[in-house]
Amino acid sequence: MGAISKVRYGMVGGGEGAFIGEVHRMAAALDGEFALVCGAFSSDAERNRRSAAAIGVDRAYPTLEALLQSEAALPADERMEALAIVTPNHLHGPMAIAALEAGFHVFCEKPMALDLAEAKAVDAAATRSGKRYGLAFTYSGYPLVEEARLRVARGDFGRIRLVQVEYSQGWLSRPIDSEGNKQAEWRTDPARAGLGGCLGDIGTHAFHLAEHVSGLVVESLCGDLATHVPGRRLDDDAAALLRFAGGARGTLTATQVAAGEENGLRLRIHGEHGGLDWSQMEPNTLTLRWLDRPAEIVRAGGPGLDPATTAKLRTPAGHPEGYIEAFANLYRSFGRAVRDGAGPAFPTAAEGLRTMAFIEAMIENSAGSAKWTTLRT
Amino acid sequence: MGAISKVRYGMVGGGEGAFIGEVHRMAAALDGEFALVCGAFSSDAERNRRSAAAIGVDRAYPTLEALLQSEAALPADERMEALAIVTPNHLHGPMAIAALEAGFHVFCEKPMALDLAEAKAVDAAATRSGKRYGLAFTYSGYPLVEEARLRVARGDFGRIRLVQVEYSQGWLSRPIDSEGNKQAEWRTDPARAGLGGCLGDIGTHAFHLAEHVSGLVVESLCGDLATHVPGRRLDDDAAALLRFAGGARGTLTATQVAAGEENGLRLRIHGEHGGLDWSQMEPNTLTLRWLDRPAEIVRAGGPGLDPATTAKLRTPAGHPEGYIEAFANLYRSFGRAVRDGAGPAFPTAAEGLRTMAFIEAMIENSAGSAKWTTLRT
Amino acid sequence: MGAISKVRYGMVGGGEGAFIGEVHRMAAALDGEFALVCGAFSSDAERNRRSAAAIGVDRAYPTLEALLQSEAALPADERMEALAIVTPNHLHGPMAIAALEAGFHVFCEKPMALDLAEAKAVDAAATRSGKRYGLAFTYSGYPLVEEARLRVARGDFGRIRLVQVEYSQGWLSRPIDSEGNKQAEWRTDPARAGLGGCLGDIGTHAFHLAEHVSGLVVESLCGDLATHVPGRRLDDDAAALLRFAGGARGTLTATQVAAGEENGLRLRIHGEHGGLDWSQMEPNTLTLRWLDRPAEIVRAGGPGLDPATTAKLRTPAGHPEGYIEAFANLYRSFGRAVRDGAGPAFPTAAEGLRTMAFIEAMIENSAGSAKWTTLRT
Amino acid sequence: MGAISKVRYGMVGGGEGAFIGEVHRMAAALDGEFALVCGAFSSDAERNRRSAAAIGVDRAYPTLEALLQSEAALPADERMEALAIVTPNHLHGPMAIAALEAGFHVFCEKPMALDLAEAKAVDAAATRSGKRYGLAFTYSGYPLVEEARLRVARGDFGRIRLVQVEYSQGWLSRPIDSEGNKQAEWRTDPARAGLGGCLGDIGTHAFHLAEHVSGLVVESLCGDLATHVPGRRLDDDAAALLRFAGGARGTLTATQVAAGEENGLRLRIHGEHGGLDWSQMEPNTLTLRWLDRPAEIVRAGGPGLDPATTAKLRTPAGHPEGYIEAFANLYRSFGRAVRDGAGPAFPTAAEGLRTMAFIEAMIENSAGSAKWTTLRT
Repeated sequence: MGAISKVRYGMVGGGEGAFIGEVHRMAAALDGEFALVCGAFSSDAERNRRSAAAIGVDRAYPTLEALLQSEAALPADERMEALAIVTPNHLHGPMAIAALEAGFHVFCEKPMALDLAEAKAVDAAATRSGKRYGLAFTYSGYPLVEEARLRVARGDFGRIRLVQVEYSQGWLSRPIDSEGNKQAEWRTDPARAGLGGCLGDIGTHAFHLAEHVSGLVVESLCGDLATHVPGRRLDDDAAALLRFAGGARGTLTATQVAAGEENGLRLRIHGEHGGLDWSQMEPNTLTLRWLDRPAEIVRAGGPGLDPATTAKLRTPAGHPEGYIEAFANLYRSFGRAVRDGAGPAFPTAAEGLRTMAFIEAMIENSAGSAKWTTLRT
Repeated sequence: MGAISKVRYGMVGGGEGAFIGEVHRMAAALDGEFALVCGAFSSDAERNRRSAAAIGVDRAYPTLEALLQSEAALPADERMEALAIVTPNHLHGPMAIAALEAGFHVFCEKPMALDLAEAKAVDAAATRSGKRYGLAFTYSGYPLVEEARLRVARGDFGRIRLVQVEYSQGWLSRPIDSEGNKQAEWRTDPARAGLGGCLGDIGTHAFHLAEHVSGLVVESLCGDLATHVPGRRLDDDAAALLRFAGGARGTLTATQVAAGEENGLRLRIHGEHGGLDWSQMEPNTLTLRWLDRPAEIVRAGGPGLDPATTAKLRTPAGHPEGYIEAFANLYRSFGRAVRDGAGPAFPTAAEGLRTMAFIEAMIENSAGSAKWTTLRT
Repeated sequence: MGAISKVRYGMVGGGEGAFIGEVHRMAAALDGEFALVCGAFSSDAERNRRSAAAIGVDRAYPTLEALLQSEAALPADERMEALAIVTPNHLHGPMAIAALEAGFHVFCEKPMALDLAEAKAVDAAATRSGKRYGLAFTYSGYPLVEEARLRVARGDFGRIRLVQVEYSQGWLSRPIDSEGNKQAEWRTDPARAGLGGCLGDIGTHAFHLAEHVSGLVVESLCGDLATHVPGRRLDDDAAALLRFAGGARGTLTATQVAAGEENGLRLRIHGEHGGLDWSQMEPNTLTLRWLDRPAEIVRAGGPGLDPATTAKLRTPAGHPEGYIEAFANLYRSFGRAVRDGAGPAFPTAAEGLRTMAFIEAMIENSAGSAKWTTLRT
Repeated sequence: MGAISKVRYGMVGGGEGAFIGEVHRMAAALDGEFALVCGAFSSDAERNRRSAAAIGVDRAYPTLEALLQSEAALPADERMEALAIVTPNHLHGPMAIAALEAGFHVFCEKPMALDLAEAKAVDAAATRSGKRYGLAFTYSGYPLVEEARLRVARGDFGRIRLVQVEYSQGWLSRPIDSEGNKQAEWRTDPARAGLGGCLGDIGTHAFHLAEHVSGLVVESLCGDLATHVPGRRLDDDAAALLRFAGGARGTLTATQVAAGEENGLRLRIHGEHGGLDWSQMEPNTLTLRWLDRPAEIVRAGGPGLDPATTAKLRTPAGHPEGYIEAFANLYRSFGRAVRDGAGPAFPTAAEGLRTMAFIEAMIENSAGSAKWTTLRT
């Protein structure tokens, strides 16, 4: 019966006051294909207990170690199958490795790790374990991002010449990281956030989306990192010129000091015959512009979609779907891979490694005087 | 613990191939505050069984009668607390009455009933039962609809003069109701849909939204119903001039033959000092225009929102929320009313009666030669 | 040579402080096909003199009578050929008749006259004179309005079912007509504005556009006029249900108390296969929506335009053209008709009569209790 | 009287089939403050004659030399006062110098010259002559660009951190320059276009707008030029990272191979408290986003504008103005400077020199391996 087919998962991090853990839980709940069976929501015992109660989870553990050990000891039809990791960045790598080695599938918040070397260790652990490893590059879960990717891949635009990706936020315009904002605090702390600030937090999303949709690989880049807010320890603004294998050129900007901007991730790709334009804040619209005919507005649920796009939609045309539904698409794909062994239709370690290489290349280039830095995974 | 606090609900209708039942389930699942424990998903036994399995529900019943009887016989901490009704329209009234009389709370798809008289019977049953009765006028669940309502109520625009509501769809532009489309078939069948076609299906949403946000009551109306597609048995297009108590004027259009339109529900309200503009297909934006200062773009998650609006949001600014989240807001309010006795922050029988009176006034006016028809609940 | 081919025109009204006279002069000047040779810009002698000097016109006359008499006495290659009438409404009719009878072509601001009877007298005078009579229904001069009209006419959308036109302004939200605003003052004075307030000022534009683009004729209407601002002597808000010959239905709203709105004229037309959407405030875009394929954005200067549309454009795609250019298209067509006898590609007396009949039908219907009023030219 | 106050100007270039010459003539005609009295429209005698006749100019000269000599010999109240230069790029410099040395004011299409050295010679000639020299950086003529500039200057956004400018066109996506398109042909011919292709044609507009509105000076840049269309002799795509004096960072992209794009010039500037967003294709809207309050839509003719912005507008709110009106604003300012000695409210030689320095820095940087190139005027 139905209840049996749900994927049982646990969560580490995501207790009271956390943002992304709640999003993971809603995304997993949406389609009724996951059941949250256990968690280690906080290293603070009282907070962990309260969070578990509020979430409605009975098996709350004080630490990830306890969780992995206890769950592994449960009967096969009861124990957790997969772990969602929603802690601050510096724990992503070690926890993923621990869970994989304990025999659990892993779905991890980005970034994959603190640096490329650690990310490679995660990748190796995943390979050794034979378990699924998924990464929450959420924006690739939007149905019209899939439509965009498919249209590039099937050649609608001809050979690709230009890839322009931008990601503008404004929430770090003031020094809130030194004024008690928890989200801002760890994101600008090198020990917990990793090498990149804005670069790691949102630059990696932009980079992932650009490669994912274009199907092209960035060969080299030239970047400029800035820290506009005095006292901040990591970059809050990044820009880059990109050169793709095959000759396409591109630009990437990611900033968290564009005061007044919300979550302005936008991707534009142009080929010989036309181009596409997609914006995360209006995710149900994909604009196609053509050299020799009027622009088209391709809409979620509307005519002209690839069946693979339609499969990612839950409502008819004109009933907007958003961020949580995009996230749920990643969970659904991950869950089916876990349950049925379906091929991964979600970001994996290979894509995680690319984003870590991007971070390192940006930092190297920005610090030096040479114009181009080769991006090596 | 958490699991205990979930509201246990059952569902009638919503089996394989149905659209709105699945939406109800996702909406109820999103926040983890409901558990679907039983259902009578289809009058076809095999389809009912398959649906229950796919959904993951163990207690599947052949009929609503069986469901009500069996659930009532279960221990209090196991049995269903509330019933979601997602059948075709003609069953809404009788089923709601049956469930209320059996001691269950009811959350019902709109319309409330086939006509005003039946709706009054539902209302009476709800009152007698002391149980909660909620109606899925989904669009009132959008956070920025709440923001709009609050701003009108607190007088931001001064005295209201104009209320313009429109709802344009195009999916019934061709005679798909006589070509095997199930959704179209019952919606254009007077026996199953009720007195109004387009009028009942979406005109009522428009009417509800107009009264809900403006806080004004339509006193009289002058309407024109049309059936553009030959052979169709109910209206597929409706328009009305509205006169509100207190002197405001308005227009309402609802059409399902605006070929190419998706789900174009839009509300504009103007008062002495400015006005508001909200469109369902971009639900996270509320545009405010002012007589003496630049227009403002109020955004979900952005600055300037009332706390009551913020309480209906699940993600930060720029992370779009959509139709399912709006729906989930109704479920969450309904669930908390069921569980904690919280006041109803969801559409109730009183609002349902208004929409039924609207349907009847439109049909009476459209058929006659008198200009104005008074709208009486 | 070139200078000889310019159409020599005079102007009555349009002195200092007037708005629309200046627009007529810019529109006539834009293409270099008109020369303003004389004027009676104001009934105030000093103001007339100053205006003529500022405009750079040597032949300034104290009255229209003096102008007509003196110009008629000049040699044929020097005298004015056409008169532009840009006075308040109540003078349009008598002045047009006087000018036509004196043997001059006339290009007149709308409305054509104070009422239908007077408009018919103008029409008769134009016919008797054999001269050209044009009316400034400016919005029909936009290139993409022409594109819209052509696409309806050639059947792109199939049989038309819906025509929705709206025109929202907010500048009369306060009683500025009783506070010294000259533009507002005469527009709300029945003696100078005519029977309709908002109805005549902008309702006629909306009505004209609806019939012009749809190619359909309004057979009957049901309207509601309101005066929201206390003390105002004419309507400031109008709404109507429309029934077109052939079965199409429609709505028309025109309001000048939609506080915060600028000049929101929008036309939507839907047929069996799709529909069009045009907004005056973004005039270079025509959105086409289709039942079975993605919406298209047809753009001024872009691919897919009819050559007749392209002929009305002055710049390449992406170089926005606006209100003055639309106006100039009417002048250019009028000038070529005057000079070369080209057929009228501008609004003429026949269209003026329709708009006067619309005003009268709205007033009659709004005052009575019968639902439908037939519109008779 | 009026006619006497018009500025008499001549034109070199701009004969039949040319695009920009006609735009200059419309822009000069719009306000009635210029009279075109002579021209050398084409080096082809017959084409020159036909163009003069079509335009309505009596004094047509075979060459610029003949024009300058003959006009200089005319009485002071008859002869041309200013020369508009609308030839291909390679003639801009020499012709401007010739006209200035002959004692005429000059209004020149951009670019100023083929390279920085030649531009300096023009600047020196202008200084020596004491005559006015204006450059058609048209986009700075838009009223809302002025509003943007003023708001940055008065500190509305706080210290500026980010300047993002983009200019996307698609019309050179195919090799039309080798297929007979005259506009494309000379623009991609180094001998006639200068050092930059896309860089000079539109990159300079983007650069000018960025410095003009931000009030900041680019100190150094890092650029990447590409030629995507095989066989093309100049760049058709440019991107750059910018560093401004004072610490602001920026990006500039300019491309003519973004297939399907029209004339997508957009400028975004962000400071500590908020930012602005302006797009040339919707020029009457300036969006302001704020850290701590809702975004505002500042509109041409609407509330909140600086009087200097209003002075550049010709119609009330909601009556769109476009490219020709922006161009006419430059002409009006230039004309008043010529006539009354008013200070220059139009782009001058100083700004022209900056754009030439930008071209040279981009070419130098793009060809080398050093990351940053200092931009020196």
